[in-house]
Amino acid sequence: MAAPPVSPVLREKYDRRQQEVIDACARVFAQRGFHATSIDDLIAETSLTRGGLYHYIGSKQELLFRVFDELMTPLLERARPLAAPPGDPEERLRKLTRVWMRHVEGHRDHVLVFNQERHTVARDPQWEQVRTARAEFEGILASVLAEGQRAGSFVMADPQLTALAFLGMVNHTPQWYDPGRRLSADEIAEGFCDMLLGGIRA
Amino acid sequence: MAAPPVSPVLREKYDRRQQEVIDACARVFAQRGFHATSIDDLIAETSLTRGGLYHYIGSKQELLFRVFDELMTPLLERARPLAAPPGDPEERLRKLTRVWMRHVEGHRDHVLVFNQERHTVARDPQWEQVRTARAEFEGILASVLAEGQRAGSFVMADPQLTALAFLGMVNHTPQWYDPGRRLSADEIAEGFCDMLLGGIRA
Repeated sequence: MAAPPVSPVLREKYDRRQQEVIDACARVFAQRGFHATSIDDLIAETSLTRGGLYHYIGSKQELLFRVFDELMTPLLERARPLAAPPGDPEERLRKLTRVWMRHVEGHRDHVLVFNQERHTVARDPQWEQVRTARAEFEGILASVLAEGQRAGSFVMADPQLTALAFLGMVNHTPQWYDPGRRLSADEIAEGFCDMLLGGIRA
Repeated sequence: MAAPPVSPVLREKYDRRQQEVIDACARVFAQRGFHATSIDDLIAETSLTRGGLYHYIGSKQELLFRVFDELMTPLLERARPLAAPPGDPEERLRKLTRVWMRHVEGHRDHVLVFNQERHTVARDPQWEQVRTARAEFEGILASVLAEGQRAGSFVMADPQLTALAFLGMVNHTPQWYDPGRRLSADEIAEGFCDMLLGGIRA
């Protein structure tokens, strides 16, 4: 991987192109699986030469790390302010879900790869940062739910199971969600929250 | 793939061993991804010779089909009677979720492979049977929800979104569920149903 250019104009161009490369590779990983994807597959998808590809990424593993990083870092930046007041727990849960669904909408391939490669990042020390990011996000969701329980807004027999169920609902959306169809990311977020909060029993 | 033995005793032994082979291969597919798994990986996991492996399965693709079949066929057999009365919609939803979660518990690798290979079965005519089985199961869930809506037991702004959310909840469990830990499959099923039916708002 080359050192990025120093000139701001060139640097901006490099960063933009690098992100396009990462997104294209996320698409191939989601389709073929990370381990089954060859460097030749990535060359075909990005229309870069082998040297061009290595100009933007160091290795296939580095690329997988970038895919996870593109998914988790901006999501955490937007989610962190919602972990604590201002805002009552229901309002913050709705905001958190909107932020999360909008991010999932723009990163469906990344989420599919994240779900598929859960075992890859399970133990090895090199994936510690990815595991920490995932745990932080799950902690934000858990803290909003727990505070709602303390404040008397929410009643949960098993808050951990509630959080896992909600994680499943949202993280499963890339399996079926097709942007531009019937529902927007915001509508899905509202629908999920209405269901979790109010239930469906008449 | 050899023709299965005719003698009932040998046939039972063959079928049992074939199922062990399919389960072992589901484990490797879930870990490495279907496309990245080589025949040598499967030989290593099953401790069979190459000839021994081909005695039980025709090809890697046939094996993937068997993994999907082991997941869907018994699940559909148990789910079909719950699609219509007797039983009120809430009771049938709870039964369906228990049947489903118990099956997921025993087939976590199969579900992971099913989620990972969604794109593999998406279009190609040879996977029609798998798509039909998936659609049938989703239809059973949808019909229980729709009937509850008609009967006035359930209120849903968007029944399709409710069904997709619930599918996400249950099909995501293999990502975190560890049998023998805190919760049984039945307890998870009850927890999911309580949440979906009653919501968490105080």
